[in-house]
Amino acid sequence: MLGARGVLRALRYCSSSSSSSSSSVPREQRVPAVRLRVREALGAREAAGEVKVQGWVRSVRSQKEVLFLHINDGSSLESLQVVADPSLQNRDLTFGSAVEVQGKLVKSPHKMQNVELQAGAIRVVGPCDTLSFPLKLKERHPLEYIRQFPHLRCRSNVLGALLRIRSEATAAIHSFFQDNGFVHIHTPIITSNDCEGAGELFQIETSHEAKESAEKNHFFGVPTFLTVSGQLHLEAMAGAFTRVFTFGPTFRAENSQSRRHLAEFYMVEAELSFTESLQDIMQVMEDLFKTATSSVFSKCPRDVELFHKYVAPAQKGRLEQVLKNKFVTISYNEAVEILKQAPQTFTFKPEWGCDLQTEHEKYLVKHCGEVPVFVINYPYDLKPFYMRDNEDGPQRTVAAVDLLVPGIGELCGGSLREERLPFLESRLQRLGLGDAYQWYLDLRKFGSVPHGGFGMGFERYLQYILGVDNIKDVIPFPRFPHSCLL
Amino acid sequence: MLGARGVLRALRYCSSSSSSSSSSVPREQRVPAVRLRVREALGAREAAGEVKVQGWVRSVRSQKEVLFLHINDGSSLESLQVVADPSLQNRDLTFGSAVEVQGKLVKSPHKMQNVELQAGAIRVVGPCDTLSFPLKLKERHPLEYIRQFPHLRCRSNVLGALLRIRSEATAAIHSFFQDNGFVHIHTPIITSNDCEGAGELFQIETSHEAKESAEKNHFFGVPTFLTVSGQLHLEAMAGAFTRVFTFGPTFRAENSQSRRHLAEFYMVEAELSFTESLQDIMQVMEDLFKTATSSVFSKCPRDVELFHKYVAPAQKGRLEQVLKNKFVTISYNEAVEILKQAPQTFTFKPEWGCDLQTEHEKYLVKHCGEVPVFVINYPYDLKPFYMRDNEDGPQRTVAAVDLLVPGIGELCGGSLREERLPFLESRLQRLGLGDAYQWYLDLRKFGSVPHGGFGMGFERYLQYILGVDNIKDVIPFPRFPHSCLL
Repeated sequence: MLGARGVLRALRYCSSSSSSSSSSVPREQRVPAVRLRVREALGAREAAGEVKVQGWVRSVRSQKEVLFLHINDGSSLESLQVVADPSLQNRDLTFGSAVEVQGKLVKSPHKMQNVELQAGAIRVVGPCDTLSFPLKLKERHPLEYIRQFPHLRCRSNVLGALLRIRSEATAAIHSFFQDNGFVHIHTPIITSNDCEGAGELFQIETSHEAKESAEKNHFFGVPTFLTVSGQLHLEAMAGAFTRVFTFGPTFRAENSQSRRHLAEFYMVEAELSFTESLQDIMQVMEDLFKTATSSVFSKCPRDVELFHKYVAPAQKGRLEQVLKNKFVTISYNEAVEILKQAPQTFTFKPEWGCDLQTEHEKYLVKHCGEVPVFVINYPYDLKPFYMRDNEDGPQRTVAAVDLLVPGIGELCGGSLREERLPFLESRLQRLGLGDAYQWYLDLRKFGSVPHGGFGMGFERYLQYILGVDNIKDVIPFPRFPHSCLL
Repeated sequence: MLGARGVLRALRYCSSSSSSSSSSVPREQRVPAVRLRVREALGAREAAGEVKVQGWVRSVRSQKEVLFLHINDGSSLESLQVVADPSLQNRDLTFGSAVEVQGKLVKSPHKMQNVELQAGAIRVVGPCDTLSFPLKLKERHPLEYIRQFPHLRCRSNVLGALLRIRSEATAAIHSFFQDNGFVHIHTPIITSNDCEGAGELFQIETSHEAKESAEKNHFFGVPTFLTVSGQLHLEAMAGAFTRVFTFGPTFRAENSQSRRHLAEFYMVEAELSFTESLQDIMQVMEDLFKTATSSVFSKCPRDVELFHKYVAPAQKGRLEQVLKNKFVTISYNEAVEILKQAPQTFTFKPEWGCDLQTEHEKYLVKHCGEVPVFVINYPYDLKPFYMRDNEDGPQRTVAAVDLLVPGIGELCGGSLREERLPFLESRLQRLGLGDAYQWYLDLRKFGSVPHGGFGMGFERYLQYILGVDNIKDVIPFPRFPHSCLL
């Protein structure tokens, strides 16, 4: 049965239904029809009276006795089957055209679907120039092919599914933080701090200024950049709200023509005050991953299935195991030992004090059974100034954590932050940064508490749970190598 | 009674509670205590056993027999009253210091609160240098004053309330769209299109490039800017998902030292396919406003009350009326007639074909009874190329709508988009823009349908519902005139 809520919602945005009675609809059929999304129609268990469905034609099959259409409006991966008299066929009714179908939802004789729509009237709202339309009927286009058409690729099954999942994952992440008492903060996009020296920055000028020499007269009075992280701003807020998060765009001016990097990507970041051990932070990272992933899997099962069936066939079972078990934790010390004892040779020789390379991360994840692995307590000198000294030797390690996942490498990074004024002050002074971070030192003077936080790359998260190889296929509009609507 | 969910949640992130048994807590009292947020403690109706609360001291009152503290952790406007033996007083226990209090939640004898915390132990986690701390005990600092301290002002009642409301409003807007079948799309921040020529753009370069002449070698191969609107990208997506929205930062390189403008602000934008009248769009705008506002008012009543009591005393009653009644609609034609018949003289003489100025908008809103007013069907020549010709004369009006609200002016703007290829093609050609928008024309060739959309300025929305005069007081980090952590 069609849910009351669905019908109400359908009726609500239905004010224009009268204007849709085009000349192709006989006068006697002009009864008000309930406008349904395809998803709502598919969810109806029995006949729901006269309905109107709008969408784009995904297939046309004309037989002697009957005309079959499949209509999709992006509300679900599945299309609605329309059954019509062949007399309703017309030359504009092609693959890719937009139609409005009025008729009765009836129980379908086919096993694949609960219902089908018996069309009384079909109106082509917008024809499709099929010859130049890059998507073709019955073809499963490879991701590389559809990436050439960023404005149209969302009409393919795979990108449709991807963007619905991305939307649900966004909502699931917001819900996780809200349910756990985090306040959402919009940290600045334009900023004058580079947070951690995490890569090349994009610089901002007004278009007028950019044409002149850039040394003088900045719009904001100082050189400004696109943010690489909202962490430092979040720390200020964690000193008032205890738990805060942000989820927005971040930028790196690095060559993003690879399949692993983007110039513009989304990051989830959280900060928690009154955390006294790194485990507090790791628990939130693990809970976030598991809660969001379970939510996405239950909210868009068919969309996720498409990826787990055609894109990364083994991913489903592996992730189900991951969701059931506690994440593995090893220390950086242990990681280096594991790498040193590895039977394989690495391009970069593993050595205490050196950063873990992609080849090392891959080996560690494999060593631990192809599951997510927390690596904790990194060497002091490898990490940025704000990470908390573990005091296990003179400036030996800091309370930092990276979460490594199979196929991706680093998914999350976090740490306890140095909340002790003297430690922070002397470290900033050694780096010659004391002046730039006066406000940051200030925070340590007024009710400073142990705190920490982490960031998670949203695109990498989507890549991991869906098994998508190229990061350009998990964003709405790829820029390289094709950028018709950059 | 303390909700089971609250206790469970509290227990979950409580792994570090053992480490908190500092030397000031006698050994016999070292029983595991449930860690509660202040909000959870305040919501408890009866004794909830041994609890631990962490936060910042908002007041200290030492009497002969008893020591009173108020503790706030940002989870709510209200602080938790702590009652302790005067022997627990120490010199670090001052306004602004961070503390951890362990004790028993008991029914309070005072009318103002349900419960109070009888402290068994108080630990000062982080002292506060009260002399240099810019916020002072018992002072109600004006917004202009606290704006000087963007990293600390969130610890004031008014900014705390504001940012909790901003967080809830963000969530309410996401929920509204999700509940109504919209797919959330992250439209690009870095873009090469200026969408509608809506103002000065910020240009992007890599920091290295910016130092040289900007004419050559752009990072993306073409000059790129910070987005002014995600509309055109959303239109592409509405051709696949029918209903889409975005909610992200947008930018204008305009002087934002005024109290009305920001260089970086948030915008909610939505596009709907298969809309055949402007009323469809206006209905969504009105529903969004009413649903989000009702949600915010019910989720943070005390935070909202602070604004409606101290910042804009008459706002509450006015908004309750607005939420109950249908928004008023007038046409641009009617608006011009109303203005021409106005008993007052305007700086800009009202004339058909001229844009409505702020003074005109103010008069129209007043004329209609200080309520939100939709103005529809603007002159063709005033509006951007993508707006749909009403065909009520040769290029006379387009199906555009602005929503004007008291005290603010334009809160939302929207239109039907020109879905007819020949109309759009000839207009773009006249403007010499055909080449730049080839992909946009493309969308009209492949199943083009009547569609429309709108944008709402999020900061203006907050200003309106809370009665906040200066737009800098509804963002987390003001840049002008103070920008210590820009």
